[in-house]
Amino acid sequence: MENKKIKLGVPKGSLQEYTLRVFRLAGFDIEIPERGYFLKINDPEIECFLLRPQEIPKYIEKGRLDLGISGDDWIRETRAKVKEVCDLRYAKQEVKKVKWVLAVPKDSKIKSIKDLRGKIISCEAVNLVKDYLKKNKVKAKIEFSWGATEVKPPRFSDAIVDLIETGASLRAHNLKVIDIILESSTKLIANKKSWEDEWKKEKIKDLALLLKGAVDSEEKVNLMMHVSGKKLNRILKVLPKSSAIKKIAGENWYDVSFNCEEKETREIIPKLKKMGCQGIIEIPLNKVIL
Amino acid sequence: MENKKIKLGVPKGSLQEYTLRVFRLAGFDIEIPERGYFLKINDPEIECFLLRPQEIPKYIEKGRLDLGISGDDWIRETRAKVKEVCDLRYAKQEVKKVKWVLAVPKDSKIKSIKDLRGKIISCEAVNLVKDYLKKNKVKAKIEFSWGATEVKPPRFSDAIVDLIETGASLRAHNLKVIDIILESSTKLIANKKSWEDEWKKEKIKDLALLLKGAVDSEEKVNLMMHVSGKKLNRILKVLPKSSAIKKIAGENWYDVSFNCEEKETREIIPKLKKMGCQGIIEIPLNKVIL
Amino acid sequence: MENKKIKLGVPKGSLQEYTLRVFRLAGFDIEIPERGYFLKINDPEIECFLLRPQEIPKYIEKGRLDLGISGDDWIRETRAKVKEVCDLRYAKQEVKKVKWVLAVPKDSKIKSIKDLRGKIISCEAVNLVKDYLKKNKVKAKIEFSWGATEVKPPRFSDAIVDLIETGASLRAHNLKVIDIILESSTKLIANKKSWEDEWKKEKIKDLALLLKGAVDSEEKVNLMMHVSGKKLNRILKVLPKSSAIKKIAGENWYDVSFNCEEKETREIIPKLKKMGCQGIIEIPLNKVIL
Amino acid sequence: MENKKIKLGVPKGSLQEYTLRVFRLAGFDIEIPERGYFLKINDPEIECFLLRPQEIPKYIEKGRLDLGISGDDWIRETRAKVKEVCDLRYAKQEVKKVKWVLAVPKDSKIKSIKDLRGKIISCEAVNLVKDYLKKNKVKAKIEFSWGATEVKPPRFSDAIVDLIETGASLRAHNLKVIDIILESSTKLIANKKSWEDEWKKEKIKDLALLLKGAVDSEEKVNLMMHVSGKKLNRILKVLPKSSAIKKIAGENWYDVSFNCEEKETREIIPKLKKMGCQGIIEIPLNKVIL
Amino acid sequence: MENKKIKLGVPKGSLQEYTLRVFRLAGFDIEIPERGYFLKINDPEIECFLLRPQEIPKYIEKGRLDLGISGDDWIRETRAKVKEVCDLRYAKQEVKKVKWVLAVPKDSKIKSIKDLRGKIISCEAVNLVKDYLKKNKVKAKIEFSWGATEVKPPRFSDAIVDLIETGASLRAHNLKVIDIILESSTKLIANKKSWEDEWKKEKIKDLALLLKGAVDSEEKVNLMMHVSGKKLNRILKVLPKSSAIKKIAGENWYDVSFNCEEKETREIIPKLKKMGCQGIIEIPLNKVIL
Amino acid sequence: MENKKIKLGVPKGSLQEYTLRVFRLAGFDIEIPERGYFLKINDPEIECFLLRPQEIPKYIEKGRLDLGISGDDWIRETRAKVKEVCDLRYAKQEVKKVKWVLAVPKDSKIKSIKDLRGKIISCEAVNLVKDYLKKNKVKAKIEFSWGATEVKPPRFSDAIVDLIETGASLRAHNLKVIDIILESSTKLIANKKSWEDEWKKEKIKDLALLLKGAVDSEEKVNLMMHVSGKKLNRILKVLPKSSAIKKIAGENWYDVSFNCEEKETREIIPKLKKMGCQGIIEIPLNKVIL
Repeated sequence: MENKKIKLGVPKGSLQEYTLRVFRLAGFDIEIPERGYFLKINDPEIECFLLRPQEIPKYIEKGRLDLGISGDDWIRETRAKVKEVCDLRYAKQEVKKVKWVLAVPKDSKIKSIKDLRGKIISCEAVNLVKDYLKKNKVKAKIEFSWGATEVKPPRFSDAIVDLIETGASLRAHNLKVIDIILESSTKLIANKKSWEDEWKKEKIKDLALLLKGAVDSEEKVNLMMHVSGKKLNRILKVLPKSSAIKKIAGENWYDVSFNCEEKETREIIPKLKKMGCQGIIEIPLNKVIL
Repeated sequence: MENKKIKLGVPKGSLQEYTLRVFRLAGFDIEIPERGYFLKINDPEIECFLLRPQEIPKYIEKGRLDLGISGDDWIRETRAKVKEVCDLRYAKQEVKKVKWVLAVPKDSKIKSIKDLRGKIISCEAVNLVKDYLKKNKVKAKIEFSWGATEVKPPRFSDAIVDLIETGASLRAHNLKVIDIILESSTKLIANKKSWEDEWKKEKIKDLALLLKGAVDSEEKVNLMMHVSGKKLNRILKVLPKSSAIKKIAGENWYDVSFNCEEKETREIIPKLKKMGCQGIIEIPLNKVIL
Repeated sequence: MENKKIKLGVPKGSLQEYTLRVFRLAGFDIEIPERGYFLKINDPEIECFLLRPQEIPKYIEKGRLDLGISGDDWIRETRAKVKEVCDLRYAKQEVKKVKWVLAVPKDSKIKSIKDLRGKIISCEAVNLVKDYLKKNKVKAKIEFSWGATEVKPPRFSDAIVDLIETGASLRAHNLKVIDIILESSTKLIANKKSWEDEWKKEKIKDLALLLKGAVDSEEKVNLMMHVSGKKLNRILKVLPKSSAIKKIAGENWYDVSFNCEEKETREIIPKLKKMGCQGIIEIPLNKVIL
Repeated sequence: MENKKIKLGVPKGSLQEYTLRVFRLAGFDIEIPERGYFLKINDPEIECFLLRPQEIPKYIEKGRLDLGISGDDWIRETRAKVKEVCDLRYAKQEVKKVKWVLAVPKDSKIKSIKDLRGKIISCEAVNLVKDYLKKNKVKAKIEFSWGATEVKPPRFSDAIVDLIETGASLRAHNLKVIDIILESSTKLIANKKSWEDEWKKEKIKDLALLLKGAVDSEEKVNLMMHVSGKKLNRILKVLPKSSAIKKIAGENWYDVSFNCEEKETREIIPKLKKMGCQGIIEIPLNKVIL
Repeated sequence: MENKKIKLGVPKGSLQEYTLRVFRLAGFDIEIPERGYFLKINDPEIECFLLRPQEIPKYIEKGRLDLGISGDDWIRETRAKVKEVCDLRYAKQEVKKVKWVLAVPKDSKIKSIKDLRGKIISCEAVNLVKDYLKKNKVKAKIEFSWGATEVKPPRFSDAIVDLIETGASLRAHNLKVIDIILESSTKLIANKKSWEDEWKKEKIKDLALLLKGAVDSEEKVNLMMHVSGKKLNRILKVLPKSSAIKKIAGENWYDVSFNCEEKETREIIPKLKKMGCQGIIEIPLNKVIL
Repeated sequence: MENKKIKLGVPKGSLQEYTLRVFRLAGFDIEIPERGYFLKINDPEIECFLLRPQEIPKYIEKGRLDLGISGDDWIRETRAKVKEVCDLRYAKQEVKKVKWVLAVPKDSKIKSIKDLRGKIISCEAVNLVKDYLKKNKVKAKIEFSWGATEVKPPRFSDAIVDLIETGASLRAHNLKVIDIILESSTKLIANKKSWEDEWKKEKIKDLALLLKGAVDSEEKVNLMMHVSGKKLNRILKVLPKSSAIKKIAGENWYDVSFNCEEKETREIIPKLKKMGCQGIIEIPLNKVIL
């Protein structure tokens, strides 16, 4: 048992910073040595490698890794056969999805996927486009693009499929989106054999619980406040069921606390203040496991 | 109602970073797109623009914005007629005031404002200086300075009025302060008509509550500790009245918590420790609404 | 009494950033002005200087400073006679120790300290090496190295004594470690006369309490959760004794909270979840004084 | 005579780097000390200040400076009465002109200056716009813009007058140019009284000669080649008149050299090579005075 | 004829900076606008695109470009059928070749290509490896690597084929080179049809002449010196034949000049000095066409 | 003979950049590999190490190096016995000397060296100060300073000896210079035994010639112009004797060229222009050996 280890692939590049942050919130010291790809992690049961998210799914399928983090997009693009353990929900710097879109020059005659017949499409994820065309029964020429895909039309291709954030880059290159082909977020994925090993499965599930708890904490906060006994019932009606009410010793006042989405506080706090709550404080969280 | 919106001006430059931080603590996702001035904010009732703090007060007066954040200094300099909603108290990177001072070369014969008669004063905020001279009944020549005002004396002007932080820049240019003409902090200001609109006023007041709660949280913390029943009364005498005391189930011990200024903890914590409090922890806060 | 002041030396360089962070967690506003060595601190009883950690121990011995922060290594190297107030436990960017090691070229015939007889050793801390050689009764030639010690062997010296972090730099220069000569962490040290002054001693002890509370908080968190009355006893068995259990008003549920090492949460949280705890949240801390 | 000095204003900001480069090519050591505005120059007859180009023309008019470098645009904007000594022809990083243009939103109804009547125009150079409107007999409202003028339309103004480089910034903000109001380059300008002083005028003229020689050298090169006596006459027909032909001792070959525009070499060199010239070399120049 | 244009592909990335430098030496103003891929060049007969060197060869083959610059390596990898116009000899920041090597872990049992049978080879240039294996009649598994190829062995592959500069990166990852599979430099390549068009061929040849002249000038200098008539014959024996000797008017002295490799000057200059040459100067060159 | 090599020490730090520039002008390709101290140089007879200038003189004395570059200051400070080959005249980024000065607080009672008796002097170069005090027959306490010497007075020392550039740092710390103790420039120094070896001495002398030629070229230029036969005699009177005059074939015009200090061109060029010279060009130089 001593020697059992999980080989884990951590994604290099745009997902890297946020992934390390999530591991740290989850309770791990994890560090990238200079020039390194062999990460230091303070858990002797984990061996941790920094690899491109494009490479992780296949390395998991082939058993060179037990577990890894990659995006939906690259899992599909590489057609890797892996076990999806859980959805970590983030992408780049935030908890959100990223989009792969079909875009064409603003003045192009191509208005929808049907008009792509026989055209040239540039893309960094050739299989995603193949699947998309197949599903839509359209035949077109797909050319692999080595980055900067948005500069290809109209001289070097008729359309592109590319990842977008704000859309500013597309606009700056005079392109418009005509379809969304995939919304992708970050997944924790495992090798199928590793998932059948009792010890590894347990280890992976604990890790998934902690990582999800860390991701969830990014959007949640804890609110605490003092409520007078007279107003308690009225206020309880607007609070979540899971609120904890504790009596303050020797007074007709209560300490009320509950967890909620950070963005809900924008509405709840002004409401609670008006209803007479006092000493409202909002506490940041490292992990939330509901 | 659906379509009602507040047009909000966020200050670009030295106030920008801290302002965004306060909005985020207040529960908003707010982002500056590259090259952008049209901010993304996850509240469909707010339309948000990044503008120079010098320009925001006038745009609010003229109704091109409903609400905005700018410094006292620029509100006065532009002589904009606006409603001051609340004082957000910060300036640059911290909760503090900034100062506009009158400075002259260390060896100048100008010792006080009276000696300015007929002299040349360089300044980026010409009206602030006009008002100051008028109040002091001194006539002098004010020249607009395009930045780097501190290098003007003695060759290009006799005195300057400039914003100071640490005073190091003045010292480095061999200048000394002879008067403080304004202490300025950051204000939330509204268009007077918008303030008369029922829906807008309510929205603005809720926003002010959240922003102030966020600013206040920067200087406050929550302290929690365990106190034995025997020592409770003695310890309560040194704690704030708003402390919450909760009995620990099945023991003669109490859980005591209260909010205080972070800087007060330097004195309170050693005192509480000596009086026998155990397990003292200090918790950071995101918002405080007392 | 008014005018009493502690003269404090803060270490410049690799310990600087973390030291300032600890002071801030401890409740002080502390800032380094541009080009400055005279730090701004919002405690009128402290006068604060930024100095090299190599210089602080001797300045304390000679009474030019009352108090300071430096590493074990430089305290020993300078042979300064000072009072060690407490171990702050950090080094560079983390709570950990740093190591001074004896290293030689991978293919060197020197296998242990005994083989050093008559050889040349390059080092930035000459006295550390002298003491080490003396203790081991070996005579060798020690040459002071002005940095980049790892490039000296084999052309310019036979062995080196140097500080290591990950060991990557040694490996890159084809060196191997053959002994550890010192493990060093950061100490709070005082002038012996200052320690005999009543007022100064009290001030130093309070400061030590706050700084240690801040360092400890870096590794600790607070866990809170809801536990049903039925499961309470079983769960209490796995929790620390210092856990606080508070009854939730009007229900057979309890609010349980305790402090623990952040890294322990990796094991505790999955266990508690399996035992039926609900609404587990982890809260970051600024200070912990147990 | 010893003490005679020229007070010279060097423009800070976008013209700064190129201006310093031109002074260095002209044979001066000139340096900006950290935080400084009082430049070091190795000519005891020059006292040299770094000032904003907006401020230099007025300081020259008022005699606080004898000589300075600024753009046409700011000379006109400030309406300073100064002597133009020579056109230095550069702007920003190159020998070229910059343009101030009138721009409006792409879908604006404003098609030409005539449509500006009663509209709001944002601009950093208010007088330039006033003069332009006056010349065109159009009345409109001009608002001073504190930078980022291109973000003002359509919400905060109807049109802008702004400096453009590539036009990319305008396009990115969905604006189009509808008129060019000024093409500006960098001028050497002098105070009118200084120009009447014999010594100062001579000094200024020598300086102008060197600076122009340096600017011109940026676009010129020297070509040298060997030509056989048989082909000399044919080749001389395609060369500039000022070519120098020197006989090579003891052979029927000639060394031919001339100065030309660097961009002309793209056509001349292939032609000369085809006509039989040998050993063609192109030499960079520091100064060219034709 | 007016409208004839050459569509030119300029390589983005590691070759970009040096390529722009060569164009500038060749007499072109060429600039990359922000976010741009459509380069500004001051020759109306050239339309210039910034593209990855991996993409340029195929775009030339297919006629989407007439002319382009790319490395030998990517021309072979993409198997593009193009006309090689000339060898520009540079790679990265200098005039030199880059190497693609076969490397394995230092302690691997793989000693030569023969031992690769059945092994996994990671590489960014899959076809280069295929051709190499085929030529050597070895069958192995080639896996495409998305960068950071040097971290793949031994866990994720048995060997790699990768580009090396100094070899430091390989050493740092504990790899050793066992074969060089390609030495590559930068080529000017043309579409075969464009090469048959009279006008385009002429334009391309002139451009090649200028670019080669610019690259050559990077390694050449011009030496000039004064030689007394008495020593002339002896000195001429050690000089290149193409030296130009011009008599100095009215004296028995000669001006001698010749072009040579910059690195040869290390031997020639001390020799000439000893033989009595005076006033030896070395002049940098922009272009050399011998 | 084949294997003969010179071991050369190149100074790391403030002299490094300029030293590499001089080697490149002298005709060597020299490069610092990442993390390296073993420089790549394209001369198989030189082995080249990057070392601190403080260490080079002693390594030369002891024969671990044959040759090296260091400042006068460190040669004296380390009291190394070495052969000075030549003065390379530069320091930091330019051809100039640097100064070590004695400085005290502006309001100090110490007015001259005599007042130092019994005081504390901080310095990074302890022996330089010892020699200086000895020469002046003053006894004082010298303390080694680990950098940032200018912050030491008045709290940590009474005076300092430090290197100055512009003096701005001293002024910013309220210090004034009361004596200059050393003016230092960069020297090429050799081991005394190496200097007796025939082959090494020859190699070192050739290298010195090239390096000096490169340093000299930094301040010199070549001027060329056309002069009509009629004016030749008058003009020759103002030109250096070493000017070369070559007749232009078939015309009564002459081509005149000479080398001069770049800074002299500021006076010569306007004068020559007024005397009727035409087509004056100034050419930059790589090496000058007069």
